Amino acid sequence: MIQEDDNAMLLVVAHGSRRASSNEEVRQLAQRIKALPDCRFTVVKAAFLELEAPSIPDGISECIAAGASEVLVMPYFLSRGRHVVEDVPGEVEVARQRHPDAKITLCEYLGGQESIASLILAGVQGGN
Amino acid sequence: MIQEDDNAMLLVVAHGSRRASSNEEVRQLAQRIKALPDCRFTVVKAAFLELEAPSIPDGISECIAAGASEVLVMPYFLSRGRHVVEDVPGEVEVARQRHPDAKITLCEYLGGQESIASLILAGVQGGN
Repeated sequence: MIQEDDNAMLLVVAHGSRRASSNEEVRQLAQRIKALPDCRFTVVKAAFLELEAPSIPDGISECIAAGASEVLVMPYFLSRGRHVVEDVPGEVEVARQRHPDAKITLCEYLGGQESIASLILAGVQGGN
Repeated sequence: MIQEDDNAMLLVVAHGSRRASSNEEVRQLAQRIKALPDCRFTVVKAAFLELEAPSIPDGISECIAAGASEVLVMPYFLSRGRHVVEDVPGEVEVARQRHPDAKITLCEYLGGQESIASLILAGVQGGN
């Protein structure tokens, strides 16, 4: 669990798109997470697997350069495909080799989170 | 808001993949939504924009054939790209022309739901 006195930072990792607006959506999501009243991360930012900067290793390096005690990497993907199973972990491994003493944690991808079913239901069904 | 005595059905619409496991993930999500204690939909099923059956119009037709009073279509997509802006609405329009008297509602896509920021934060940050 992230504590108030940590300097933990969160990296929301998306695929990346040729459409600037889609990349911007991810950056705005990072800002919305940071703005939540119960957010204990000192920094929340976006990074991209392809087609947009920063890359995942560069995003992690930026967090570490900014003094992160821990960097959590959250794959913003819906299906447990090659990107989630191989590519994102591979990029995280690059960062770990770059920063062997840093604490870098790869989180469960979005589509794998149990609570996504409740979120969808609440969104489409309206109030209880 | 969906009422208890409706015969409303929910169609979770994903892109579709050549990987059977990714399509299966969407079907399992539909089952998980249906299994939630507060789910008022009589049926929750998956449909696909490409590469997998049923298509969106066919999924909607199946719901109507099964007696749906309303079909809600939820785009399981993260970014407001062409699929969300043009392709899914186009498929819904095909269904509306096929069933001019049916009530077919296109919901906000997943990535556009305000509560996704809270879901991600809760997932990565741990308990409050």
